[in-house]
Amino acid sequence: MIDLKSFQKEWLPKINQQLENDLSMASPDADLVAMMKYAVLNGGKRLRPLLTLAVVTSFGESITPSILKVATAIEWVHSYSLVHDDLPAMDNDMFRRGKPSVHALYGEANAILVGDALLTGAFGVIATANSSCSVEDCLPTEELLLITQNLAREAGGSGMVLGQLHDMDNHTEEQNASTNWLLNDVYSMKTAALIRYTTTLGAILTHQNVNVEDNHFDPKKAMYDFGEKFGLAFQIQDDLDDYQQDQLEDVNSLPHIVGVKEAQSVLDQYLFSTQEILANTVEQDQQFDRRLLDDFVSLIGDKK
Amino acid sequence: MIDLKSFQKEWLPKINQQLENDLSMASPDADLVAMMKYAVLNGGKRLRPLLTLAVVTSFGESITPSILKVATAIEWVHSYSLVHDDLPAMDNDMFRRGKPSVHALYGEANAILVGDALLTGAFGVIATANSSCSVEDCLPTEELLLITQNLAREAGGSGMVLGQLHDMDNHTEEQNASTNWLLNDVYSMKTAALIRYTTTLGAILTHQNVNVEDNHFDPKKAMYDFGEKFGLAFQIQDDLDDYQQDQLEDVNSLPHIVGVKEAQSVLDQYLFSTQEILANTVEQDQQFDRRLLDDFVSLIGDKK
Repeated sequence: MIDLKSFQKEWLPKINQQLENDLSMASPDADLVAMMKYAVLNGGKRLRPLLTLAVVTSFGESITPSILKVATAIEWVHSYSLVHDDLPAMDNDMFRRGKPSVHALYGEANAILVGDALLTGAFGVIATANSSCSVEDCLPTEELLLITQNLAREAGGSGMVLGQLHDMDNHTEEQNASTNWLLNDVYSMKTAALIRYTTTLGAILTHQNVNVEDNHFDPKKAMYDFGEKFGLAFQIQDDLDDYQQDQLEDVNSLPHIVGVKEAQSVLDQYLFSTQEILANTVEQDQQFDRRLLDDFVSLIGDKK
Repeated sequence: MIDLKSFQKEWLPKINQQLENDLSMASPDADLVAMMKYAVLNGGKRLRPLLTLAVVTSFGESITPSILKVATAIEWVHSYSLVHDDLPAMDNDMFRRGKPSVHALYGEANAILVGDALLTGAFGVIATANSSCSVEDCLPTEELLLITQNLAREAGGSGMVLGQLHDMDNHTEEQNASTNWLLNDVYSMKTAALIRYTTTLGAILTHQNVNVEDNHFDPKKAMYDFGEKFGLAFQIQDDLDDYQQDQLEDVNSLPHIVGVKEAQSVLDQYLFSTQEILANTVEQDQQFDRRLLDDFVSLIGDKK
């Protein structure tokens, strides 16, 4: 099994090229395309599509052009969410990754519309994932519909948008945030929803039919759970990294509620859960090679 | 063939019930559901889903539960677009249909998120259109993917969002709007895109396979053209109705550029085009009954 560094080196440029190609076709209007590219092609680490491709690889499947394309749709969604989150009425951030945020550069109206165009376009990317496939590697249309359903749920009012709505209430002057509320109603929605979408997506793309009623092992369920725990750990690590900044901005993150030491302990529990899930997956599926996903988990552990 | 009044009487309550049901499931959060319902269930005329159902009926097909559900997705998109258009950074409208707009009632951040949740949810409605179908009336998954592609194109950066982007520049102080630009780059995108989507959708839902290379009549193309002309006529009628209001707000509508009389003449040309398209469709398809769509066209003519 390839290690994460080599995997990233191979797939990061291909992900970025796919995004560049699809964004170029997102509108006949050059100005809108330029704004959309500014929002997406800004040096992101592409954690989410890489996770999808890593899950596909872990199950021993190869990455076809359709799989690559469908995996990149999440970056359109992630990017739109950052553009809208940065708006004055939301987090009011003038900078994103050291550069002016979209509304700071292009104005508020354009930023709203760029976000809307990216969100809409994400679903177009999935629906056209088979646009250049050869017969043997086209994705089944049922799978593309299931993926669309999952994205609508995890990105929308039952997932990321709801998490963001809750997060808007979460400032220290309100003082009513409980650990459970923060983990289940904010972090699980705002951050983990898109990540569990990407890991579930990887399992869907390996075309494993499972009769769940027979109590067989379900790779989709396993990868959903892995993504959920990974996403929660990822958010808490982010909290720990941003501890002082959040304090300045009156943001109520987990370390502010339970203390840094206890937050670190919750993070460790989630990391431990990811290990349990991977161990169980190996037990149930002899073809499954966990090493690449272990490397992803280490990315969080290494930052400690 | 049923007349439009009876058709509306039969289908408007069913459309509203479908919207109500799906919106109730859009989020586990009651506050978010309430805001989404406020944005959608506000007494709209449901012109767009009615057009889809009318096209299906005109081609002699019956309206199944899956068709009804898929037809209502456009109201999620139309409603989100109104919520975002009303935002302070966009048109800054405090009222919508005589009631406070979403941002006026719930605040700007909530309005941005409600719009995002509705847009995301629209694609979920299409992807789950078969959720309660019986085998004989489930829609083919290929059709649902094609519909998703069409919606992404007509609602996003190649359609409605682009039209709105252009419309933001269209105020009289700039004085550079030409008739062609206004019709092709604003009206065709901002208004006609969603309407031609709905009429094309009706044709798709009648499952007519056409080999376009044989130069056969293509019902999807005919209904696309019908929707385009109908949409443009609809927008110009709206301009004529809002002539004085637009003048107060420095909006550059067609009547302000070419005069009321000439705008009326352009409107009449579009109405005439819709008649030509319907006549040709009847000629090509003996099963096609144009009367219901004629009634829709008369809705515009009658307002003169």
